[in-house]
Amino acid sequence: MSDIYRIRAAAARARGHVRRTPLLSSAALDARAGRRIWVKAECLQVTGSFKARGAWAAVSALAPEVRARGVIAFSSGNHAQGVAWAAAAHGAPAVILMPQDAPAVKIEGTRALGAEVVLYDRLTQDRAALAVGIGGDRGLTLIPPYDHPEVIAGQGTTGLEIVADAAEAGIAAAEVLVCCGGGGLASGIALALEAEAPAFRVRTAEPAGFDDMARSLASGDRVSNPAATGSICDAILTPRPGAMTFPILRERAGPGLAVSDDEALAAMSLAFSHLHIVLEPGGAVALAAALFRGDELATGDVIAVASGGNVESALFAEAIARYPA
Amino acid sequence: MSDIYRIRAAAARARGHVRRTPLLSSAALDARAGRRIWVKAECLQVTGSFKARGAWAAVSALAPEVRARGVIAFSSGNHAQGVAWAAAAHGAPAVILMPQDAPAVKIEGTRALGAEVVLYDRLTQDRAALAVGIGGDRGLTLIPPYDHPEVIAGQGTTGLEIVADAAEAGIAAAEVLVCCGGGGLASGIALALEAEAPAFRVRTAEPAGFDDMARSLASGDRVSNPAATGSICDAILTPRPGAMTFPILRERAGPGLAVSDDEALAAMSLAFSHLHIVLEPGGAVALAAALFRGDELATGDVIAVASGGNVESALFAEAIARYPA
Repeated sequence: MSDIYRIRAAAARARGHVRRTPLLSSAALDARAGRRIWVKAECLQVTGSFKARGAWAAVSALAPEVRARGVIAFSSGNHAQGVAWAAAAHGAPAVILMPQDAPAVKIEGTRALGAEVVLYDRLTQDRAALAVGIGGDRGLTLIPPYDHPEVIAGQGTTGLEIVADAAEAGIAAAEVLVCCGGGGLASGIALALEAEAPAFRVRTAEPAGFDDMARSLASGDRVSNPAATGSICDAILTPRPGAMTFPILRERAGPGLAVSDDEALAAMSLAFSHLHIVLEPGGAVALAAALFRGDELATGDVIAVASGGNVESALFAEAIARYPA
Repeated sequence: MSDIYRIRAAAARARGHVRRTPLLSSAALDARAGRRIWVKAECLQVTGSFKARGAWAAVSALAPEVRARGVIAFSSGNHAQGVAWAAAAHGAPAVILMPQDAPAVKIEGTRALGAEVVLYDRLTQDRAALAVGIGGDRGLTLIPPYDHPEVIAGQGTTGLEIVADAAEAGIAAAEVLVCCGGGGLASGIALALEAEAPAFRVRTAEPAGFDDMARSLASGDRVSNPAATGSICDAILTPRPGAMTFPILRERAGPGLAVSDDEALAAMSLAFSHLHIVLEPGGAVALAAALFRGDELATGDVIAVASGGNVESALFAEAIARYPA
């Protein structure tokens, strides 16, 4: 199980490796939203997303002789880069299964970190069976993207930093909007906030049409998305909430929020102009919810976790051209 | 005079107002440069550039009754926004004289911070005379962009942070590359490093053709640029080194470096892809020098100060399209 003790232990192991990211704000964004908005800039994290946290927690927790045989992961990109980085830093080999339609910038980034990348066709091949086949032969340990106690604990270190950042910024209570795929980041942060800052509550943010977490939180049971593709928010298109993350969130988070792809692009453009950070669409949905779903939020302060920045230059150029700030 | 005591006092007054910016790095940039490169991300500073530091130092140092009458500054944009922000935060009025060809994003940013913006024609009007005329009538205090002891001390707080960041990152010695216009940031950092980390040395970075500081450091006397315009690095096109900043740098910095506009754009693109930060051309020349002037640098670690991120979206889109990482 993930809990605050595991999160604190993950934070201790991460020191000097995982980056302490800043909490940013801008008067222009506050004026636009009609409330104070802070942005936890995980796009500035090592490997360009929060995924480095969970990967470091999981890889660093392995027994040395197990770790030395290597790790394996499947991911459309950000978890891939996180695991590749954490493995390389520990001197362990990494095999990453990536869908062949993953953004080129993420495939290249994963290879540049020294991982062996195996591409598969997500319509015709079963990635889990592939992973077992490749990993079993070589004795590799699977690092799952979210349903894993150490991964959740590692993502939860973001929550510990938010608590400290908020205290320094004089934020007494806030809704904490978290970009949500499988729910690893949201559940880790929810556990950290429950223990250290119970006046702060997690609200998940997802792409419209892929709001399985919001609908699951509303119904009390895990439900699936009707489609697997169809949003530019590639980083957070998971079929349904995680078996391990959902029970954590059901007790501690919600209601969930959803934004359109256009709103995610507009949030990217506003973050470019006013915060000078680079967000990918899936990393911008929480900020988009803070800016464009104010009527669904409680009155008061909002902290949006900007979870990643690994975006193709053409898409980023389109976002800042189409949505002038 | 600016000295380390004034810098430390400025840092104490800035606490809770000026942002502590992160020192970023990327394995991909290190591989490209063949050395370790760190980037001090002042584009993430309040108002999008380091200028907030000097402005805060100068405005906060004024006697309350003087400050209440207001301040005036002339600037193509970043100093304008810094002074507007610092004045507003102190409840003081601000008048900013800006050239009418300044980037629209900077003019709008200055107005959004509550300042009264007066546009002038830089070919036909004398901005200093204008400033005296407007400021004298109203009892406004001029906040110069660099030749001012408190402004230099405020910019020098960047140096204090670099010293602390470097210790934490295990950097024992480095060349610190600093984007240079009038020399306020470079001279402030040079004073801080001399006092607290003498193994670190400032190297100024300028646009080719506007390398008045490099030529002045080489000759030992202040020399001017042949032209006033002709580079996209609008933030750092000053006619000659400052009277107050140059003597500081002559004793402590150099040799100066210069990069082309194309190299500045390429550095912007690499910072986009690998650090997920937004740089303006004038804020990217130090990183460009780190990446493309390695043969002019000492062997070993480099810290590049990325001084600002206030860039028009069209120019940024052009940079990331033309120079794929």
